Amino acid sequence: MIFLEIPKTMLAVNLEAKGVLKLVEKPVPSPGPEEVLIRVEACGVCGGDLKVRDLGLPGQPPFGESFTVGHEYAGVVVQRGATVDEVEIGDRVVVEVHKGCGRCINCLKGEYTACLNFGNREKGHCANGFTADGGFAEYAVNHVNTVVKIPEEISFDQAILLTTAGTAFYAFDQAGGYIAGDTVVVVGPGPIGLCLVAAAKALGAEKVVLVGTRECRLEVGKALGADYTVNIQKGEDPVKLVQELTGGIGAAVVCDAAGSATSLDTCLDLVRPAGKIVMVAMYKRPVTADLGKAVKHNVQLHTIRGEGRLNVHRALSLMRQGKLNLDLLLTHRLDLTEIEKAFHTFENRVEDAIKVVVHPQRR
Amino acid sequence: MIFLEIPKTMLAVNLEAKGVLKLVEKPVPSPGPEEVLIRVEACGVCGGDLKVRDLGLPGQPPFGESFTVGHEYAGVVVQRGATVDEVEIGDRVVVEVHKGCGRCINCLKGEYTACLNFGNREKGHCANGFTADGGFAEYAVNHVNTVVKIPEEISFDQAILLTTAGTAFYAFDQAGGYIAGDTVVVVGPGPIGLCLVAAAKALGAEKVVLVGTRECRLEVGKALGADYTVNIQKGEDPVKLVQELTGGIGAAVVCDAAGSATSLDTCLDLVRPAGKIVMVAMYKRPVTADLGKAVKHNVQLHTIRGEGRLNVHRALSLMRQGKLNLDLLLTHRLDLTEIEKAFHTFENRVEDAIKVVVHPQRR
Amino acid sequence: MIFLEIPKTMLAVNLEAKGVLKLVEKPVPSPGPEEVLIRVEACGVCGGDLKVRDLGLPGQPPFGESFTVGHEYAGVVVQRGATVDEVEIGDRVVVEVHKGCGRCINCLKGEYTACLNFGNREKGHCANGFTADGGFAEYAVNHVNTVVKIPEEISFDQAILLTTAGTAFYAFDQAGGYIAGDTVVVVGPGPIGLCLVAAAKALGAEKVVLVGTRECRLEVGKALGADYTVNIQKGEDPVKLVQELTGGIGAAVVCDAAGSATSLDTCLDLVRPAGKIVMVAMYKRPVTADLGKAVKHNVQLHTIRGEGRLNVHRALSLMRQGKLNLDLLLTHRLDLTEIEKAFHTFENRVEDAIKVVVHPQRR
Amino acid sequence: MIFLEIPKTMLAVNLEAKGVLKLVEKPVPSPGPEEVLIRVEACGVCGGDLKVRDLGLPGQPPFGESFTVGHEYAGVVVQRGATVDEVEIGDRVVVEVHKGCGRCINCLKGEYTACLNFGNREKGHCANGFTADGGFAEYAVNHVNTVVKIPEEISFDQAILLTTAGTAFYAFDQAGGYIAGDTVVVVGPGPIGLCLVAAAKALGAEKVVLVGTRECRLEVGKALGADYTVNIQKGEDPVKLVQELTGGIGAAVVCDAAGSATSLDTCLDLVRPAGKIVMVAMYKRPVTADLGKAVKHNVQLHTIRGEGRLNVHRALSLMRQGKLNLDLLLTHRLDLTEIEKAFHTFENRVEDAIKVVVHPQRR
Repeated sequence: MIFLEIPKTMLAVNLEAKGVLKLVEKPVPSPGPEEVLIRVEACGVCGGDLKVRDLGLPGQPPFGESFTVGHEYAGVVVQRGATVDEVEIGDRVVVEVHKGCGRCINCLKGEYTACLNFGNREKGHCANGFTADGGFAEYAVNHVNTVVKIPEEISFDQAILLTTAGTAFYAFDQAGGYIAGDTVVVVGPGPIGLCLVAAAKALGAEKVVLVGTRECRLEVGKALGADYTVNIQKGEDPVKLVQELTGGIGAAVVCDAAGSATSLDTCLDLVRPAGKIVMVAMYKRPVTADLGKAVKHNVQLHTIRGEGRLNVHRALSLMRQGKLNLDLLLTHRLDLTEIEKAFHTFENRVEDAIKVVVHPQRR
Repeated sequence: MIFLEIPKTMLAVNLEAKGVLKLVEKPVPSPGPEEVLIRVEACGVCGGDLKVRDLGLPGQPPFGESFTVGHEYAGVVVQRGATVDEVEIGDRVVVEVHKGCGRCINCLKGEYTACLNFGNREKGHCANGFTADGGFAEYAVNHVNTVVKIPEEISFDQAILLTTAGTAFYAFDQAGGYIAGDTVVVVGPGPIGLCLVAAAKALGAEKVVLVGTRECRLEVGKALGADYTVNIQKGEDPVKLVQELTGGIGAAVVCDAAGSATSLDTCLDLVRPAGKIVMVAMYKRPVTADLGKAVKHNVQLHTIRGEGRLNVHRALSLMRQGKLNLDLLLTHRLDLTEIEKAFHTFENRVEDAIKVVVHPQRR
Repeated sequence: MIFLEIPKTMLAVNLEAKGVLKLVEKPVPSPGPEEVLIRVEACGVCGGDLKVRDLGLPGQPPFGESFTVGHEYAGVVVQRGATVDEVEIGDRVVVEVHKGCGRCINCLKGEYTACLNFGNREKGHCANGFTADGGFAEYAVNHVNTVVKIPEEISFDQAILLTTAGTAFYAFDQAGGYIAGDTVVVVGPGPIGLCLVAAAKALGAEKVVLVGTRECRLEVGKALGADYTVNIQKGEDPVKLVQELTGGIGAAVVCDAAGSATSLDTCLDLVRPAGKIVMVAMYKRPVTADLGKAVKHNVQLHTIRGEGRLNVHRALSLMRQGKLNLDLLLTHRLDLTEIEKAFHTFENRVEDAIKVVVHPQRR
Repeated sequence: MIFLEIPKTMLAVNLEAKGVLKLVEKPVPSPGPEEVLIRVEACGVCGGDLKVRDLGLPGQPPFGESFTVGHEYAGVVVQRGATVDEVEIGDRVVVEVHKGCGRCINCLKGEYTACLNFGNREKGHCANGFTADGGFAEYAVNHVNTVVKIPEEISFDQAILLTTAGTAFYAFDQAGGYIAGDTVVVVGPGPIGLCLVAAAKALGAEKVVLVGTRECRLEVGKALGADYTVNIQKGEDPVKLVQELTGGIGAAVVCDAAGSATSLDTCLDLVRPAGKIVMVAMYKRPVTADLGKAVKHNVQLHTIRGEGRLNVHRALSLMRQGKLNLDLLLTHRLDLTEIEKAFHTFENRVEDAIKVVVHPQRR
């Protein structure tokens, strides 16, 4: 089979120095006993990649050492480690980010995205694109725990959205999981916020309200299933709307996917007594919020890190069933040689870019 | 039986006007079909009483109308409504605060302390001492839902602590309930914080750390079972201690019972990845905290209102078993005629007052 | 408004003696302060009605006393008790069966279908059609807790299926609720089993397998969304199929909606290690099953009684959204005067009857 | 340090053939990168060992191959694999049985005792004493996941009870974990049943009832904290007692630790509506039980396999705190050379033997 002809070297995006990505020739890596080699067909640009490039995150290889970024990718299994039988050569797969160490108390309890040995590769932790080489390359090696088979009806481009979508499903998992019939509000129409909208609808939420500031993004949210959108930039009032929709009670689940200085306070005004807030955005700085409201009303505040508890599998299933269509997020497609343009397009939201996909096999 | 001789009138503390409590003669109330009449033997002063007196809380009768405060009380059942068979005449009982409406979605789901009809007596909600007459009186009427039998071995004074203790057990309930073997930190050695310490020990927590600013309160905490106390006023560092105790991981459960401007941030520094914070204090104003840490580490933030989910029953059981001894909180005992002194002592922490108990039957 | 003209008397089906239903003239009842009077537009025949008629269930009025059966009904609110503002006169509503007492520990914890005062009307419990007059009548009185508003797009006939569907959603609630992406097997294609199939699909289950013995019912299951059906009467093997579908692991959730002598054993063979079985059928006699398999594989066995935890609301929401279409269950429609034929049709599955609906306003 | 002098060979109990254990000389094993070598100080005989010896369990090496039994042991770490820093050389440790593969969906969700790769050592699963060499030997190799540090105040003999006690704590974990204040019944006073009694008391259960047939075991149960014992052999009626203790409601949690033909039916009679049954015994053959009672009363039936979800840590903490004293279970102590006598004593309950401990370092 053609995909068995694995070359010795490959093109890969290397993080040369702080802020500097460069396309270089690298050896094609070999999978260990529990790993597979993937021929990468699509890799998405994510906000996390910008932090990796410009700031350096905990557990990341030092700037200057050989390191390939990219953590949202899909491709074809071309080689398997000795113990791997979970996938076959030729299987089409998408990846999860987090491979926990499997030996800390969090991993043993199933909280592998909160692994206490984050970044410690010797002890078994690995997060491709963060602490180990990632997917902006022709080939990538992944632990079998982070590899999920995708059926023919899902394209590679669609598949790379499953990592982000898995995050959304994990958010609802933390909120109890059973949101069918509940009114859900999402604050912040970024890629995760938009996935939350689509996920909420796929799970049977009664009404889904999307709150944001950019009309174009709200339009995408509407197309993805939001029953109502609120543009607070235009002076529209989400609290008034949600009070009307819920008979003055508030929403059962409110997601903060904005992470701004005021978004949590907005969530506290939107949630009903004994309701749930899920914080999915990484707040850049300390947040000021009237948390006394949460205490007074028995509101629980949940958080998630990553796409934990196998929620990528849930996202995949719903996409396969045709209940989760995120194609509208796929705004731009570029070749690996255009990596700089890809990052530029994503970072500056050129042409209202949402998700920019790079195709390593097309040059 | 002597307790069946119910007088027509009684002494009761009335909230005459904003900030003004006065001992007056009132008719002894009659219980409705689902209610009992209690001869009050002990009633504690709580921070909530001060808010009721000075600010007025939602659902409270307007200042100037007849209204008796007091919500932590115990006594003897002297009369029963037509349908009541859960308790007998002569039974010794303590009360819970919250009687939900029984018809909103929160009550139907068991979240009666977050009743959506709070303060609506016509619809069935009642919170004695908050929205209906309370326990600073010789007699009080309570719905059977808020009445808990106490055995002989628990005194009335001890019993009034069960409302506060129930709050502590509800806090651990929200955090999953199963804290045996876990390291627990409590920030804030007020009455609830001290109950949290004692409750954590009774439930089998591995190490319990109490963080505060006043040495006398920390001493009480130690006597109630805290394995370690940290006086941040003296420059002691709770984070360093907890890191040492937990092998650098952090505490499984951290309770914010302080509600200060910085206490939540302290909690965020103390909790371990995938751990839990429980906010039990009513923050007086918006809080600023680095919630990004919670998101980054999958930390869940829980809240409680009141002594929900029947946790007073848990507290009672452990007190009866001798595993929860809170006697040290009972610092002052006064007669009903000394109500002003009682409030003054509590409010100004005269002689390091923690819990001030008033005895309506002693004059 | 026309519906305010409430007559003094009405036609109602009365349980005259054990096994004997008769259409009689009765006074139209008056709602209490927390109740509403409903003009019944549709009432379904259920297996429970047969037990009420022929055996008498706990809490049921003695045979011979005035008692109207029927617990799956929908209609229009024509009168409200003094405290009711949750619904308006003229609102179209469907009913739930269980109104808990609101004062036992189960009700206080939200488990109102397991009320410890079942059948004790004085203490507040009520189950229309079981312990109080039900819906085979022109009018019925219901507590506001058991009344759910339905939108215009749902017909009365469709609405009466929501009680059964609520049972199905409660079953998945007990199994954790978050079944999106999971493979689900339903054993037993009765009305509840068929609702389970449709509910599982609406909630995003990956594959749904229906196991039964009658081809006509399996066909209905397929039309309701079952991905696979297995006719064990024909020698088809559900275990083999489920093993193939799940890579040899077994199904995440298996529902026993058959309640036969062997159905639980079949479920034990179908479920995966650490999976869940939900028993929704009332076994008529002691069951023999190899429960050691459950212990060996960490399988949890859940049960449900009724349509608890407000799951009728979830069912309603999904029906309104067009994700839960149960119309195929509505096989027969008759007038109130045809009550005997209605019961006969249902009991003997005349013309493959599934759900027989009676229309009290059409004569 | 003396314990660094590791010999080349050691004495170990080998399973020579079906039913035949023999003391042989074997090479001392070497730990892999994630493993430690333990000098075994104490190893308990368990019912599981008899099955391993006489029947052979799934995943077990074929009879005749070199294989050392024993899965409840404690000792001292004498050598560490390259990546191990969780324990130090010289640390006193006890072992858990189950090391999951870390890559199946159950392990990834924290259900490692229900690992889907049970017995597959190549994929990473290991259960010492079941699928790999165990503790009836002078030395044993364990994965770091199965090694728990014990403090000085716990002896090696006490420590070997922590595996069994961990099973008891896991049982209560499955039942929700928060049993403080609840009435608990344990049916079956075997080693696990007795641990359940002690665990329930340590966790603050209100009343603990132990049901059995042998007076001597019931006496031990009483000494371990059972508030009541019921000898059904003597015609004592557990249902009557529990009804009295609970005001006619039934017990919140009932554990089947007997696994007899009738024990589950007894549990169904003892549990309260909406209560929980935990099946901890491996039923030897299919069970007949009136499960309709569970369905009718919303009773959930839980199971456990092994000492999952790190519950050995909980047991350890409570033993260290002095709240869990199981010394009465330690009835017999023998040297490794007396292995046959040890098994004989345990199997035939010689002198009312409960737990027989073998000391490999004493000859």
